[in-house]
Amino acid sequence: MTQNVTVVMGQIDPIVGDISGNVDLIIEAAIRAKNESQADIIVFPEMTITGYPPEDLLLRDGLYPQINQALNRICEAVTDIVCVVGYPMMDELGERFNMAAWIEEGLIQASYMKQNLPNYSVFDEQRYFTAGHHPCVVEFNGIKFGILICEDIWKITPSTQARDAGADIILNLNASPFSEEKHQDRIATLQRRVDEIKKPIIYVNQVGAQDDLVFDGGSFAMCADGEVCVQAPEFKSELTAVKLVKQADSVVILEGQKSKLFEGEARIYEALKMGVKSYVQKNGFPGVILGLSGGIDSALTLAIAVDALGADNVEAVMMPFRYTAEISKEDAAQQAKTMGVKYQSIPIESMYSAFEVALAASFEGTETDLTEENLQARIRGTLLMAISNKAGKMVLATSNKSEVAVGYSTLYGDMVGGFSPLKDVPKTLVYRLAEYRNTLSECIPNRVITRPPSAELRPDQVDQDSLPDYDVLDTIVKQYVRLDKSPAEIVALGFDEEDVRKVIRLIDRSEYKRRQSAPGIKITQRAFGRDRRYPITSHYSE
Amino acid sequence: MTQNVTVVMGQIDPIVGDISGNVDLIIEAAIRAKNESQADIIVFPEMTITGYPPEDLLLRDGLYPQINQALNRICEAVTDIVCVVGYPMMDELGERFNMAAWIEEGLIQASYMKQNLPNYSVFDEQRYFTAGHHPCVVEFNGIKFGILICEDIWKITPSTQARDAGADIILNLNASPFSEEKHQDRIATLQRRVDEIKKPIIYVNQVGAQDDLVFDGGSFAMCADGEVCVQAPEFKSELTAVKLVKQADSVVILEGQKSKLFEGEARIYEALKMGVKSYVQKNGFPGVILGLSGGIDSALTLAIAVDALGADNVEAVMMPFRYTAEISKEDAAQQAKTMGVKYQSIPIESMYSAFEVALAASFEGTETDLTEENLQARIRGTLLMAISNKAGKMVLATSNKSEVAVGYSTLYGDMVGGFSPLKDVPKTLVYRLAEYRNTLSECIPNRVITRPPSAELRPDQVDQDSLPDYDVLDTIVKQYVRLDKSPAEIVALGFDEEDVRKVIRLIDRSEYKRRQSAPGIKITQRAFGRDRRYPITSHYSE
Repeated sequence: MTQNVTVVMGQIDPIVGDISGNVDLIIEAAIRAKNESQADIIVFPEMTITGYPPEDLLLRDGLYPQINQALNRICEAVTDIVCVVGYPMMDELGERFNMAAWIEEGLIQASYMKQNLPNYSVFDEQRYFTAGHHPCVVEFNGIKFGILICEDIWKITPSTQARDAGADIILNLNASPFSEEKHQDRIATLQRRVDEIKKPIIYVNQVGAQDDLVFDGGSFAMCADGEVCVQAPEFKSELTAVKLVKQADSVVILEGQKSKLFEGEARIYEALKMGVKSYVQKNGFPGVILGLSGGIDSALTLAIAVDALGADNVEAVMMPFRYTAEISKEDAAQQAKTMGVKYQSIPIESMYSAFEVALAASFEGTETDLTEENLQARIRGTLLMAISNKAGKMVLATSNKSEVAVGYSTLYGDMVGGFSPLKDVPKTLVYRLAEYRNTLSECIPNRVITRPPSAELRPDQVDQDSLPDYDVLDTIVKQYVRLDKSPAEIVALGFDEEDVRKVIRLIDRSEYKRRQSAPGIKITQRAFGRDRRYPITSHYSE
Repeated sequence: MTQNVTVVMGQIDPIVGDISGNVDLIIEAAIRAKNESQADIIVFPEMTITGYPPEDLLLRDGLYPQINQALNRICEAVTDIVCVVGYPMMDELGERFNMAAWIEEGLIQASYMKQNLPNYSVFDEQRYFTAGHHPCVVEFNGIKFGILICEDIWKITPSTQARDAGADIILNLNASPFSEEKHQDRIATLQRRVDEIKKPIIYVNQVGAQDDLVFDGGSFAMCADGEVCVQAPEFKSELTAVKLVKQADSVVILEGQKSKLFEGEARIYEALKMGVKSYVQKNGFPGVILGLSGGIDSALTLAIAVDALGADNVEAVMMPFRYTAEISKEDAAQQAKTMGVKYQSIPIESMYSAFEVALAASFEGTETDLTEENLQARIRGTLLMAISNKAGKMVLATSNKSEVAVGYSTLYGDMVGGFSPLKDVPKTLVYRLAEYRNTLSECIPNRVITRPPSAELRPDQVDQDSLPDYDVLDTIVKQYVRLDKSPAEIVALGFDEEDVRKVIRLIDRSEYKRRQSAPGIKITQRAFGRDRRYPITSHYSE
């Protein structure tokens, strides 16, 4: 004798390490799910109690008593709805597991140990966890729920094992970071799984951001035929109900809410907003400042910052020098005005002269070179940091991925900042995002988008004096960095061999700069940083 | 019918990624071992052909054809001595293994796949490799050699498995990074192994350094009774012969060379020298410059740099300001003179004034605070970087571990630099190392060691205005960072609770600075960096 069962996807935004705050979120969501949706079960993301990824906090013995207290609090507070939460556990032998608990009527009635521990890309789970080996299937109101955690669903075994253990439906707890094509990958992967097991899957993802990772949410329920029948929104904490009914021998998901998803540039823009907002707010900054140069990178960064934090919390500083074009000053001032942010201009001439005099003896007999360009950038960085230190607002760096790749940026200069929103955004995508943003409301002056990009560090300079066209550069970077293609393979795609060699040499040699760069938001399938761990000292070449 | 066999421990210094250069080293060493020691077998370190750790270079498909060519070159060039080399291998399924090959008479006669893949501390081997499961035992002149790789010897199974497969002796290929007590750990661990298997072990370690890791060499042969009977030198490329003879059923190691080992501060000093030398030379810098403040950190850094690179390749810059004591200027000049390095003094007053004027409007109505101190540090950083950019010499940062821990340093200020030799050296150890260095020859003025430490960023400032005494601070850092002790446990050791809370709060909040710091040399059992991966955004507390 079975009844309908309502499962709520508890798409929440925990903060890493905030055990008691995360428990508050869990309890509040459980109560709300019961009250608003008459839900029977609420399912939360992977590692709900710690937030994901907690990294080496997992190595602290002091964490585990706090986890036990947290579980006790949930057991006490949530008694009229089943609560499926994720957390780390340490056993008597000191081995750690990535767990999910089925909490029913104030007790942990069942628990599951994650079996597939990802140890690639940004993931280091084998650093912390021992793999489980057993399925976990719990019956509730005549329906058997199989519990899996994140990576488990990307392989065949755990879901077939759960089905073989009797599961009618899979509950999958995730902390799956955003990248451009990740949503499609998830759908395609889960379609393979439901095709194999012929059972529906409820996929609950974390939302929010943690350092360089954005979690886009977008939780969904997939019917046994591979169709997404309930879709939670992206980039938003939300509880979404999934109604189940057992018909004959199968569990069927009834049609439910289908949130519209973002696409293309809009989706990436939302990810960037969420990354900035989370980093700034979770780290307690009262706002941000950035250098506004009249160029496209700082223009887009300003737009993202304002959209993420509100104009009152964003401040822009133009720092002109003798090479700054008049239109740069005009466009910077114009955008600041349009967006309603505090704006000031501090010319750097006097500081530059003071350095020139101080270094005169040291530089006697040498030619002007990149040193003088870097000096301008470092004076600007120092000014921004001074304003930041005085007011407590964090500096946003404005480098894009193309620059980060080839080192076309000044360490301690334009690279200063606590966070670097465009770090994983190639220049060609910077343009597309700027154009997209202007479709919402015209905020970036058109001239900023159409003029040739320039660092304005010497007379009449344009980026293409030292770099190939950005469409060429970005393709080479993608082939080499994301796809690990060899120089020969890239040349075979039709690129000039000299361009390819030059770009790859620059990428290889710039690792030392990237190591000292601010964290940014991963949006591609391979970002710089923990996603791509290259040695600085390396004589490797292909 | 058995004969004596001579095994040479090929303690060499490969460069990560320099496949052809490393093969040259291997071939040259093999020829030399044959000619000079009439050796039968030469054993090299783990991953000899790539150097260790190659990190994500291992993910490049283009690496593996190069490895095959390298093995072919060795097979062709080394035919009159058995060569045991380490390298990565990719099989037809795309799985990667950490391998050792027994190359005899121009052919790979046997190969071994590492079984224990470390994925803790600085190691990420499960990111790259699949574990092997089988022993590899090769008979040569009546002696059966069991091959193991590094971590294999830290666990019981692989060595007992090799013994069960008939091994008379174990050849262990290592890339074991230095830390203070690592040598003793290795001896103690291998004594447990020989006690279990009753067979001797030849332990061959890499020497040199790679980014933040120093490999101290110190290869040795341990007899079946646990005694070290042959000892190669530390911190030096060297070939050391081990003579074996089979008596009754056992292989016996005849007494051989016993290099004297370094101890205490001397050993750490050698590690620091090797770290600096390798980083600078392998990255092709013509030399280094550093800011010499008259304080102990820059004084010790200068000594290490000169000892590592020679006085001609080191340059010191004093950058005095209104708060710089006369004795600081005198002592800096004195040490530079004693050590014979190029020295100049550039006062920062004029640049400071220019910034003060430029920021006046922005700072109107605010109080003087840390901003003005940071500004001094950033002007100095900018000067050093300008001199570095012009001449190509790399800047050495001078922060010590105590400062790095609590964030007592200025991002883009005194933290600038390509490499940070003292990053893992606590302040109390900085003093001990300075005293040790002066026992070799008096180079650090005594006053630098005896005066109270000060950043000299405001009048009459001393470090202890804002920090507990360094012996207290360093113990708290060690308890919290290296031993993962909770605040309560640390207070229970007898420390003031307020001190403990303050230091831990500072450590937790300074992760963002450390993320942008230059790489340094790991000398303790837990360094900051890839050895301790904490989130920046974290609300965790104990």
